[in-house]
Amino acid sequence: MTQLGIVKRQTIRADAAAVEKLSRFGVATIHEAMGRVGLMKPYMRPIYTGARLCGTAVTILLQPGDNWMMHVAAELLQPGDVAVAACTTDTTDGFFGDLLATSFKARGARGLIIDGGVRDVDELEKMGFPVFAKAIHAKGTVKATLGSVNIPVVCAGALVNPGDVIVADTDGVVVVPAAMAQAVANAAEKRESFEGEKRAKFEAGVLGLDMYNMREPLAKAGLKYID
Amino acid sequence: MTQLGIVKRQTIRADAAAVEKLSRFGVATIHEAMGRVGLMKPYMRPIYTGARLCGTAVTILLQPGDNWMMHVAAELLQPGDVAVAACTTDTTDGFFGDLLATSFKARGARGLIIDGGVRDVDELEKMGFPVFAKAIHAKGTVKATLGSVNIPVVCAGALVNPGDVIVADTDGVVVVPAAMAQAVANAAEKRESFEGEKRAKFEAGVLGLDMYNMREPLAKAGLKYID
Amino acid sequence: MTQLGIVKRQTIRADAAAVEKLSRFGVATIHEAMGRVGLMKPYMRPIYTGARLCGTAVTILLQPGDNWMMHVAAELLQPGDVAVAACTTDTTDGFFGDLLATSFKARGARGLIIDGGVRDVDELEKMGFPVFAKAIHAKGTVKATLGSVNIPVVCAGALVNPGDVIVADTDGVVVVPAAMAQAVANAAEKRESFEGEKRAKFEAGVLGLDMYNMREPLAKAGLKYID
Amino acid sequence: MTQLGIVKRQTIRADAAAVEKLSRFGVATIHEAMGRVGLMKPYMRPIYTGARLCGTAVTILLQPGDNWMMHVAAELLQPGDVAVAACTTDTTDGFFGDLLATSFKARGARGLIIDGGVRDVDELEKMGFPVFAKAIHAKGTVKATLGSVNIPVVCAGALVNPGDVIVADTDGVVVVPAAMAQAVANAAEKRESFEGEKRAKFEAGVLGLDMYNMREPLAKAGLKYID
Amino acid sequence: MTQLGIVKRQTIRADAAAVEKLSRFGVATIHEAMGRVGLMKPYMRPIYTGARLCGTAVTILLQPGDNWMMHVAAELLQPGDVAVAACTTDTTDGFFGDLLATSFKARGARGLIIDGGVRDVDELEKMGFPVFAKAIHAKGTVKATLGSVNIPVVCAGALVNPGDVIVADTDGVVVVPAAMAQAVANAAEKRESFEGEKRAKFEAGVLGLDMYNMREPLAKAGLKYID
Amino acid sequence: MTQLGIVKRQTIRADAAAVEKLSRFGVATIHEAMGRVGLMKPYMRPIYTGARLCGTAVTILLQPGDNWMMHVAAELLQPGDVAVAACTTDTTDGFFGDLLATSFKARGARGLIIDGGVRDVDELEKMGFPVFAKAIHAKGTVKATLGSVNIPVVCAGALVNPGDVIVADTDGVVVVPAAMAQAVANAAEKRESFEGEKRAKFEAGVLGLDMYNMREPLAKAGLKYID
Repeated sequence: MTQLGIVKRQTIRADAAAVEKLSRFGVATIHEAMGRVGLMKPYMRPIYTGARLCGTAVTILLQPGDNWMMHVAAELLQPGDVAVAACTTDTTDGFFGDLLATSFKARGARGLIIDGGVRDVDELEKMGFPVFAKAIHAKGTVKATLGSVNIPVVCAGALVNPGDVIVADTDGVVVVPAAMAQAVANAAEKRESFEGEKRAKFEAGVLGLDMYNMREPLAKAGLKYID
Repeated sequence: MTQLGIVKRQTIRADAAAVEKLSRFGVATIHEAMGRVGLMKPYMRPIYTGARLCGTAVTILLQPGDNWMMHVAAELLQPGDVAVAACTTDTTDGFFGDLLATSFKARGARGLIIDGGVRDVDELEKMGFPVFAKAIHAKGTVKATLGSVNIPVVCAGALVNPGDVIVADTDGVVVVPAAMAQAVANAAEKRESFEGEKRAKFEAGVLGLDMYNMREPLAKAGLKYID
Repeated sequence: MTQLGIVKRQTIRADAAAVEKLSRFGVATIHEAMGRVGLMKPYMRPIYTGARLCGTAVTILLQPGDNWMMHVAAELLQPGDVAVAACTTDTTDGFFGDLLATSFKARGARGLIIDGGVRDVDELEKMGFPVFAKAIHAKGTVKATLGSVNIPVVCAGALVNPGDVIVADTDGVVVVPAAMAQAVANAAEKRESFEGEKRAKFEAGVLGLDMYNMREPLAKAGLKYID
Repeated sequence: MTQLGIVKRQTIRADAAAVEKLSRFGVATIHEAMGRVGLMKPYMRPIYTGARLCGTAVTILLQPGDNWMMHVAAELLQPGDVAVAACTTDTTDGFFGDLLATSFKARGARGLIIDGGVRDVDELEKMGFPVFAKAIHAKGTVKATLGSVNIPVVCAGALVNPGDVIVADTDGVVVVPAAMAQAVANAAEKRESFEGEKRAKFEAGVLGLDMYNMREPLAKAGLKYID
Repeated sequence: MTQLGIVKRQTIRADAAAVEKLSRFGVATIHEAMGRVGLMKPYMRPIYTGARLCGTAVTILLQPGDNWMMHVAAELLQPGDVAVAACTTDTTDGFFGDLLATSFKARGARGLIIDGGVRDVDELEKMGFPVFAKAIHAKGTVKATLGSVNIPVVCAGALVNPGDVIVADTDGVVVVPAAMAQAVANAAEKRESFEGEKRAKFEAGVLGLDMYNMREPLAKAGLKYID
Repeated sequence: MTQLGIVKRQTIRADAAAVEKLSRFGVATIHEAMGRVGLMKPYMRPIYTGARLCGTAVTILLQPGDNWMMHVAAELLQPGDVAVAACTTDTTDGFFGDLLATSFKARGARGLIIDGGVRDVDELEKMGFPVFAKAIHAKGTVKATLGSVNIPVVCAGALVNPGDVIVADTDGVVVVPAAMAQAVANAAEKRESFEGEKRAKFEAGVLGLDMYNMREPLAKAGLKYID
């Protein structure tokens, strides 16, 4: 459960091969493959055009106006990880900038998801360090109050456990529980394999009404056509 | 009036020549030419840089979490149309993605205006299918509940009748009633013809105070200059 | 104090050399150099990618739906100035477009900060006239009601006095009181001089925990590590 | 269509008997009786506990920061009318207070629906003049710019034509087109006649699952019960 | 993990004595006793003055615009339970009204927490059925798409497991994990036992600066007093 | 200027007689008497029905999640003061509850204005300690970071200097600069003296159109009446 002042050193990360496979798919596809669950709120946006990431979560619970736990988390980041920062309250403070990004990147982190603000956005883009955030804000923070690292957190409306797979692209951010990573990757692959055929049909002018046999259920539901 | 479960097949589209003429002007100019009315709310933004569109509306009334009517509308889209989707409630769900866009494009549609969310944004940009939306969200939808097609809808605060002209660019989205399309296009042309001269004067350092003879009315209104 | 119908002709602008020096630093650095104060709210965003500005404030207090004072302010703009527009109420109207920008630019203004909306955004980008705004909206305004020019205003949560230095970049907008401009510029320079060394250490894998000697205070605060 | 500077003197009000009948039902019931359409956005709230109204709409289109049209509308108000005020842009200004309420009440108006702000709220409560508004704000307005009276307006997301029936209570605000008033009143009555029986069954412990025969469709849809 | 189409029949409810004890304390006290965690977002408000509840959670995951799962949940409600409804997306639809409340109450439920809208608010108050909600909205829903019951949900930013204790009052909503209910109740009791003494001191004019020995740490932190 | 870590002991409070006189008028009247300036944003609401206050400001600048400065401010409160708390960032944390209210009340404070959250709302109502706040939230705070007391602050969009008069009622919160208190009180009195006559005329059915001689200016502005 959520508790402040706790750092969990060991976490069970999702299987590396599954993570790699998930990285080939978009957020919308993975969300569908999971049964239409797992998304963060739509206010989570990439801080620069083209940002994209896929990796395993190291979770951080911040206190408002305080980024102390970012430094504690840095030590636990391993190559392939994504830092996922939640806060105990709604906030847009700039908890993260280019210096922390340099540290995180040196540890092998693939990016940051933060239900709060970031700054030094131009530098982050130059560094190629993808961040998905609620806000861009230059507002600095202090280092005075304990939060936690690697406990389950609710980030932008989604539950994230340490080790879960995080995939983020222009369409948003999705969380895949570690234990389901392989199954979801397979389901995403399967789903995508059908898309080419559908796309070709749509391009040829076939209607969804016919492709998905919707005319009868629509009529049954009572849809009335008038002129 | 607004009613669910209705599809109107025939609509009277604005005159094609007027639509073409309107397509030459920006949203701000057209809004002024209409007497400063007709705009959608400012939360309607292009989903990619440089998106722009002009065409005749096919209106769609969606139910929350449900994009069934998108497929019904596809059949009614004609070359030069713009799909305009409203919802019976506030929503950010991702009702629309690249497959539907492929279908709409194959029908000749010029883009989508949606008071809700879209996904597959990178693909939509690659396809060159412009969308103006309230949100980008990967959240998928079902096909279970009837809305309507080609009835009058309120989309992002603006009344849209089927056949109205929709113009959208970086400045927002404006709705021109079909019956006024030609008159508005003419007024926009006239308005724009004055702008070059004004711009030249401003560039030469002439002040609006002088160009528009504002000094006297300002003084009359009581404006006080102090040092 | 805030009063309507007043225009102050003479203002004491921040020292030009200090302004020039401040222009070399980012908003986040300047905000830190000031002791973590002076920022506008994070909803103030550049209207195009890469917008950046630094200059001395000419302040404008607008009435809702009315941009008359923009023209009054134009006359008072000097080379190196930045127009800073607040409104007596929350608003997203499009008070400013390419014609006014042409006028402002001809006067030597470096850009606009507005707690409201702007339009003609594509043209503003082409002109290279940076604007930081709350909204993009084509909604036009009238010229009927007096506001004020060059009085203290609260713009997006920050107090701005005429002559203050305004710096804006991708991270937001910061206000430096004129009397502090030199001291803040010096502090920003000093702060930035330390950053290179820190960055190098982070790149080499040194942790903030060690660089900033955080382990002991964290333990003292009660942080518990578990496996 | 929406146009500024127009006042329509004659409007066709909904049938008085139908209005009276509608006044007996709650907003939720009427909305259902209309087929789940016609509601304003949920940000429209009564300004005091227990406010409730039902009457025929006199519509007002305001300009931001300007309540001139309120006075124009006063002359057109007849006993049983409800003033419905929209604005050409998003606003929270206090367009209306106790003096205007005194005037409206003297004309026989039953209340005000406003997509904006009101003030003198304590006095309005004492007067028993119900208002449903987006905001309470003391911010005053000017009388300088033309809007319109008795044209179709979009108020809080709903289309309102002059003469339509407006019903408002704690659950929100619903608009019934004049031509449908009688039919909707009848449908509401019918709907409500079923509610007593349902309520009694629910009180007796009967489940909706059984009362509405949902178990089979739920199973068919794939609902899985686990222990 | 979150999955749609699942109903869990058996849940382990928090210990009844612990629930009873928790019911004696306010939300702020319980939140502090938990170590300042467990709160829902502040947009969750009581729908009528004086609403208050404490009980064990039966969780519901709704689909947008669809309240089918409310009926499924009704069957699982036991005396002392509180229904906690989340939705797969942001919503303000009116998923719940007086008929469902009658059913829930007949099952012994103590109230509803919903990250969405409710209606029939006056009737709910008359019934004494407390609801804490994001919105009041008359908007009706359909019964067409599967959600889940008694799975872990994120409701208004807080993780809720079935069987957890929910306490709600004017200050908001707090979630106490079932396994911690007794410990938190004890901590709350202890915390409250100190408050009387503190209150008496404050009433007597003792300052927090002295009661909590803050003068020295404030000076150490660098606080400067000027005249 | 805004600086952290500063406490100003001496402030020049507005003249007591002027404060007393201002206390007789409503917020809307005072705002008008000041020339339509001085209001806080409309999101500042009384936390209980009927809350009202008038007094001289002791200003507090808080850090996010930290209420240390509340205790520092308590020592400086004198009978007739109102605490006015701003924060260095947007926040809804519960910085204030019944214990601090007991302390403030014991010092003679008349209430609190806070651009953030409060808790223990029921107790505050019982105590008769009026608070106007952005949010009600049980979220607790720490005491770790310095803010300031009695420096100029921007609170909910309004500049407040220590010693200014704060008047708050159901219509919102207005700030009267200390030096203007007497003049504004006189202007408010004058304004109110005209209202009785106007109200009587409105009650008698006189229209604003006639009382304010609006018909001619409306016609001149181009208003068109149609049937």
